[in-house]
Amino acid sequence: MTREAGLAELKQRLREISDLRGAESVLGWDQATYMPPGGAEARGRQAALLGRLAHERLVDPAIGRLLDSLAPWADAQESDSDAAALVRVTRRDFDRATRVPSAFIQRLSEHTAASYHAWERARPANDFAAMRPLLETTVELSRELAAYHTGYAHPFDALIDLAEDGMTVAAVRALFSELRTGLVPLIAAINARPQIDDRCLTGAFPEPAQQAFGEKAIRAFGYDYTRGRQDKTAHPFMIKLGRGDVRITTRYRTDNLSDGLFSTLHEAGHAMYEQGIDDGLDGTPLYTGTTSGVHESQSRLWENLVGRSLPFWRHWYAELRAAFPGALDDVDVDAFYRAINKVRPSLIRTEADEVTYNLHVMLRFDLELALLEGTLAVADLPEAWCARIQSDLGVSPPDDRDGALQDVHWYGGIVGGAFQSYTLGNIMSAQFFAAARRDLGDLDEQIGAGRYAPLHAWLRERIYRHGRKFTAPEIVRRATGQPLSIAPYLAYLNTKYGALYGL
Amino acid sequence: MTREAGLAELKQRLREISDLRGAESVLGWDQATYMPPGGAEARGRQAALLGRLAHERLVDPAIGRLLDSLAPWADAQESDSDAAALVRVTRRDFDRATRVPSAFIQRLSEHTAASYHAWERARPANDFAAMRPLLETTVELSRELAAYHTGYAHPFDALIDLAEDGMTVAAVRALFSELRTGLVPLIAAINARPQIDDRCLTGAFPEPAQQAFGEKAIRAFGYDYTRGRQDKTAHPFMIKLGRGDVRITTRYRTDNLSDGLFSTLHEAGHAMYEQGIDDGLDGTPLYTGTTSGVHESQSRLWENLVGRSLPFWRHWYAELRAAFPGALDDVDVDAFYRAINKVRPSLIRTEADEVTYNLHVMLRFDLELALLEGTLAVADLPEAWCARIQSDLGVSPPDDRDGALQDVHWYGGIVGGAFQSYTLGNIMSAQFFAAARRDLGDLDEQIGAGRYAPLHAWLRERIYRHGRKFTAPEIVRRATGQPLSIAPYLAYLNTKYGALYGL
Repeated sequence: MTREAGLAELKQRLREISDLRGAESVLGWDQATYMPPGGAEARGRQAALLGRLAHERLVDPAIGRLLDSLAPWADAQESDSDAAALVRVTRRDFDRATRVPSAFIQRLSEHTAASYHAWERARPANDFAAMRPLLETTVELSRELAAYHTGYAHPFDALIDLAEDGMTVAAVRALFSELRTGLVPLIAAINARPQIDDRCLTGAFPEPAQQAFGEKAIRAFGYDYTRGRQDKTAHPFMIKLGRGDVRITTRYRTDNLSDGLFSTLHEAGHAMYEQGIDDGLDGTPLYTGTTSGVHESQSRLWENLVGRSLPFWRHWYAELRAAFPGALDDVDVDAFYRAINKVRPSLIRTEADEVTYNLHVMLRFDLELALLEGTLAVADLPEAWCARIQSDLGVSPPDDRDGALQDVHWYGGIVGGAFQSYTLGNIMSAQFFAAARRDLGDLDEQIGAGRYAPLHAWLRERIYRHGRKFTAPEIVRRATGQPLSIAPYLAYLNTKYGALYGL
Repeated sequence: MTREAGLAELKQRLREISDLRGAESVLGWDQATYMPPGGAEARGRQAALLGRLAHERLVDPAIGRLLDSLAPWADAQESDSDAAALVRVTRRDFDRATRVPSAFIQRLSEHTAASYHAWERARPANDFAAMRPLLETTVELSRELAAYHTGYAHPFDALIDLAEDGMTVAAVRALFSELRTGLVPLIAAINARPQIDDRCLTGAFPEPAQQAFGEKAIRAFGYDYTRGRQDKTAHPFMIKLGRGDVRITTRYRTDNLSDGLFSTLHEAGHAMYEQGIDDGLDGTPLYTGTTSGVHESQSRLWENLVGRSLPFWRHWYAELRAAFPGALDDVDVDAFYRAINKVRPSLIRTEADEVTYNLHVMLRFDLELALLEGTLAVADLPEAWCARIQSDLGVSPPDDRDGALQDVHWYGGIVGGAFQSYTLGNIMSAQFFAAARRDLGDLDEQIGAGRYAPLHAWLRERIYRHGRKFTAPEIVRRATGQPLSIAPYLAYLNTKYGALYGL
């Protein structure tokens, strides 16, 4: 077979996998948005079938042979060429997929489905005991999954690497430790100051006005509605159904203004990343965001660095006020800006402010490592959780509902590998934003004028268009000229919250 | 292989085909309802892939071997047993699918897609000349498709049989000729009478009130919203996405009350048929309505026999009036009943009244047979259309837009086999309704009281639950005790319209 024919066959096979995954996404989107309850069982079967067909096609030995035959040629290409990246990333996916026996995947998938359904009942019932045996099995299966992937320094590097190519337990621990050192005194200083009044965010905010305002804002950001749409779901998410079809979902609380608004900006950040990938990569494993952390950096950049900034609100506040007549009459833009940036240690990660959020993540990262290493027993998890959140944030959950049962991750998937990306995303968001500021001149002036095109173009050029061609560390270095660093993030937090709290 | 193992393997294979088809339906529903324009290209590829995978699985020689090995056992079962029907119907699908070469299917599918896109431009532009060469190819391909299916008395029996198992050109011709003999004098008599005033149906009818009223009516019929939902599309349709998920779509005109209302009742009829099939048939080719004609009998039964009846409106009219305050104040229920049943020869089939509708169908059936038999050239079609509609209905299309370019069928599919089912559905709807009336006592009294459960249960028991176990002629005989007959339909039309027009 010639090299051209081999590459064409590989691409043809990858396109079919990609189309099956896209179809699976359509099924998943519909399930979360509009599917009637009666359709759940058949839908589960349809989605499982598409997932199995895609997986079978990925682990087909023919893919391995094609990759082998293309390797010498790909190795001779520039490492940042599409062709080299295609062979490199496909090889990584192929090796990862073929290392894990199908029977194990089936077992894991059945167990996590059962665990998720049990958790849906156990959390409202505050019944950690019901989850204990299931979580013990999940920990076992997570260790087994890690063991299939050899060649890592720490046995659980594999789990992190699956979500966050190129990251290790050691690297995450070092970053988190440094970040913690900076956060603890900042939070202590904030706690010593008079608290911000954020009562203006609660009241009566009709859903249609929230929807219209959010849509206008993200259209201005550059989210393309001809290649996407927004719907309502219980939990907001972004999903790509195929080229030219990247959707977001949001939920609204009519008694609270910030929930729906910032989740809209957040999901739009994810979506603009997917919409910005070079369409020439369509049909290949490169046609998606590179890692969970880099993805999160984009959602947090648009949500927080832009959407919770004073320049942003100087531009939009009059329009927000007009959208909710009467509700914000006595609140000036500075007071509103303070309200949406109030720092207050709390129990729930997903509702946490920018500063304390990362301590929630570190808590989970440390606990899941302890579970995986066997130094913490599942039975002792609730107590360990309470002790840690009390010592880190000075708050105590009244029960496991808002403690060890809080997040779905451990109950609907494996233990290990998911949480660190949230904080890595925060760190990267500030590093990217600082580099953009350096390159784009007066970014605050642009944001204050409602002009996001320069920032959007910078992100597309430096990050979005590459899809999965580069790992997170590579993307950071290419986009910013520096290795991953927490300095810009700490500087951002210290400057912003120093001003807000008069530190 | 044991018989049990063979049957289990067959069912396993059929379930996968069914799940792929279901997934394809999810993609199709989303494309028609919510997909952003940018997603069209990828969606087309995803849907084509699922269609190809389902087709490959159906024509797998292993299916043929399983059917061969199960045949002696299946033949020994009662012919109305699920097992016998499963083997019989799967054999029919398998033989039909394997007779046609994949390359031909590919060619046909590419041609009809191109033809459809051309028609979308040609119809508004009144450009029949642009469609002529494409339609000539369609006629050629339709003949070729018919030729793959041997063993029929008339070469185009195959095309009819594909849509309407057990029907033939001769049988349709005989029915249509008899029906025509009854319709022509009825229409002439109506035309000689003073016309009904239906101006009350035009005005300002807000969409939310139309939607709410339609939903309430079809919930009362028995359409189950926990296993379905209703959305808006350019063209109304019903689609089954899987067990427990049968959806309908509707369109509304705010200047016209009848369009959205009766299309809602119509699609709900289709949907209740699908919702009523025995769930034990799920995952097999039996788990769908048996033919297009029987399906249409159910949409027309609920739309016309129930929904355009005086007892129905005696129950609902006060509520309709309340839904559109002021709009119907001067119109009593009898006047409203007359308005929604006005008979007026017109150009557009889909907007035609109950009486003249069938002449539209006969016109198309005769013209497509002439095209297929070669007695009519495509170039002469527009003129033949005009001559026929003038002689049948006394109206003349001002251009081809409302003439030979009117229906999508010939331009987005094959020529032959689609139209007859509309009139067969009308005929069967009256025959089923008459049988139900015989069995259920005072059906008018029940409908007048808003009680549809007895009728719905009768239809489910006699028709719906069987899915594709029986052909249309078999279903008619089982449900009514009689062979297919136009007498009930002509009696219905003569009685109803005799009273309406004082004949």
